[in-house]
Amino acid sequence: MNDERIARATLTAVAEPGDVLLNRIIAHAGAEGALDIIRTARIPHGLPVTGKEAERLDHWRIRLAGAEPDLDREVCDRFGGRLVCPGDPEWPTTLDDLGDRRPYALWLRGPGDLRNGGLRSVAVVGSRAASPYGSRVASDFACDLADKGWTVISGGALGIDAAAHRGALAADGPTIAVLANGVDVPYPASNEGLFAEMARRCLLVSESPPGTHPHRLRFLVRNRVIAALSRGTVLVEAEARSGALNTASWARKLGRVVMAVPGPITSRTSVGCHALFREQAAIVVTRSEEIVEAVGRIGADLAPPPHTPVLPRDRLDPGTRAVLEAFPARGATGPAQLAVKAGADLVTVNAKLGLLAAGGFVERAPTGWRLTEAAKST
Amino acid sequence: MNDERIARATLTAVAEPGDVLLNRIIAHAGAEGALDIIRTARIPHGLPVTGKEAERLDHWRIRLAGAEPDLDREVCDRFGGRLVCPGDPEWPTTLDDLGDRRPYALWLRGPGDLRNGGLRSVAVVGSRAASPYGSRVASDFACDLADKGWTVISGGALGIDAAAHRGALAADGPTIAVLANGVDVPYPASNEGLFAEMARRCLLVSESPPGTHPHRLRFLVRNRVIAALSRGTVLVEAEARSGALNTASWARKLGRVVMAVPGPITSRTSVGCHALFREQAAIVVTRSEEIVEAVGRIGADLAPPPHTPVLPRDRLDPGTRAVLEAFPARGATGPAQLAVKAGADLVTVNAKLGLLAAGGFVERAPTGWRLTEAAKST
Repeated sequence: MNDERIARATLTAVAEPGDVLLNRIIAHAGAEGALDIIRTARIPHGLPVTGKEAERLDHWRIRLAGAEPDLDREVCDRFGGRLVCPGDPEWPTTLDDLGDRRPYALWLRGPGDLRNGGLRSVAVVGSRAASPYGSRVASDFACDLADKGWTVISGGALGIDAAAHRGALAADGPTIAVLANGVDVPYPASNEGLFAEMARRCLLVSESPPGTHPHRLRFLVRNRVIAALSRGTVLVEAEARSGALNTASWARKLGRVVMAVPGPITSRTSVGCHALFREQAAIVVTRSEEIVEAVGRIGADLAPPPHTPVLPRDRLDPGTRAVLEAFPARGATGPAQLAVKAGADLVTVNAKLGLLAAGGFVERAPTGWRLTEAAKST
Repeated sequence: MNDERIARATLTAVAEPGDVLLNRIIAHAGAEGALDIIRTARIPHGLPVTGKEAERLDHWRIRLAGAEPDLDREVCDRFGGRLVCPGDPEWPTTLDDLGDRRPYALWLRGPGDLRNGGLRSVAVVGSRAASPYGSRVASDFACDLADKGWTVISGGALGIDAAAHRGALAADGPTIAVLANGVDVPYPASNEGLFAEMARRCLLVSESPPGTHPHRLRFLVRNRVIAALSRGTVLVEAEARSGALNTASWARKLGRVVMAVPGPITSRTSVGCHALFREQAAIVVTRSEEIVEAVGRIGADLAPPPHTPVLPRDRLDPGTRAVLEAFPARGATGPAQLAVKAGADLVTVNAKLGLLAAGGFVERAPTGWRLTEAAKST
């Protein structure tokens, strides 16, 4: 891991996710430079910082003293996680729409590919206190969407979120949970089995380092990532002041499609959806086809963009080449198997996989990694 | 009854309601003239009639030969009904919005006042095969609307319509049923008790003469009257191709407010409502307050327009004066009681009531007729 990546990993432990000031500092001085500025409290000329913002810098300095980025990375390696930074092949460019609310980096767990998975994705979110009706609708929609090749993104919460993830899993489709806590922290506890299954087959994502426990404010901040990653957000059920309405609001701000599901007017958990309709802030969706119609576009982004090899195979360093050669000719494999075949440790394999993906040799598959079509033919 | 009224009564038995050609003929030659044209098949110069339309004239001629307008009026008198024609004090000017689809006349039964009742009215309509959810919503909305002083108009059908009428009755409020059959024909039979109650306390309306049995096509034609009479139409439940959607469509064409109630997407009877939302052809309403907000207007039409006496009391003819003097100083009374007190027959009393209403001396009350404020003070 280079110093810029280590710096970004550290920043995820130091500041609240998506801080406007920190993003401004990173844009000005880079992530390493940002750490220096936090450490020394020396604000460079040309970087406007208000008095109130300077207080935040003080707060970060205290947190930085206690940060243990090496430990975070070690923990992450232990469960086969990875860090994805802006500019990485797996970094979804859709997140750049967040501007100075962009994540500094993302911690990932599971074989799913964040960028490819996000290309054709829909967020299915809603109330934690879902009704049986809402849970059924969320799960049916997610199952249908997964069946049609769409990735279902949600927040891993109780109620609608869990139903959506489970529906996608039932269709053996990809699903991504964007968590407000570390990707290794099973919160809520009753979703522990779901998270384990998703870590094995799909993808867990967090802006916070491993071990981070959930915090009320972070749930709202997290919602912007769900909204930004997906083409559109479907609100299945929401009470009058539900946090899920916040995801819909982010989706609207980001120019994503906002959809909601009608329900009985006698149900508390549909009040938020109906309010969106009355404000003309959401499209009414009643079938998964209507969701696909709303988010689907004719064009290149309906299929993952092709990777063109940029490095000839013989210019790869021996270690990277060993990992590439450990790949089966057909089908997908996992980092652990690759490590065994290539005679390398898991950390090295994960790093090499990043390089190979950037070079267009390999790509993520729903169940691990595989050779690209281009790599097979060279 | 003057000849023009008799002619209009006859026409309701001869042609299908709201016929464009017949309205054109009436506009050109009057109702009596229209009967002459039908009888003689002599189309005056300046009245364009296509070949296909001429066939309709032939059809009317045959029906005219079998029409028994005297019998219709006799039957109507027997149950205390009345005929209301364009220009009558009780004729709702809102019906003129129908243009050449305007009713020729309306047959009424019950003490309610059609014109006053229509001023602050909402149509609450929907599926005959209503779900328990839909029936409950229709009845709750109607009850609330009646409570707020709004007249609930519907079609007297099974399901949503009946629930709406019953909800208004439960609040002791005014409600009007516009029927596709004669106001003395209890169709559907299971609503017989409801119709009897409405005839006693409210109002039944039909474009067809007493004794007319329902006919499939007339249900659709009838819907335009429901839409035109009311400020707005609330669709509570509707299947994909429900007739109630036709009422919503008329309401839209007439510039009335179209509202619909969301429901579970798993319910067949909410499909039509959700389709309207997706076409942005209806406002989402979830509470009666939202209905009132949509149809209510600040201005004179929120209260019945004041009647100013146009005739001094001593210029009334003795018979009319007798009916006026039979009125109690306070409260409402019915035509039967007036007939007894004035020593006149019911037909005469009904005719005199029309005159007295036109003169601003009396007005309809929810439970009959009463002196106007102006009449009390003269």
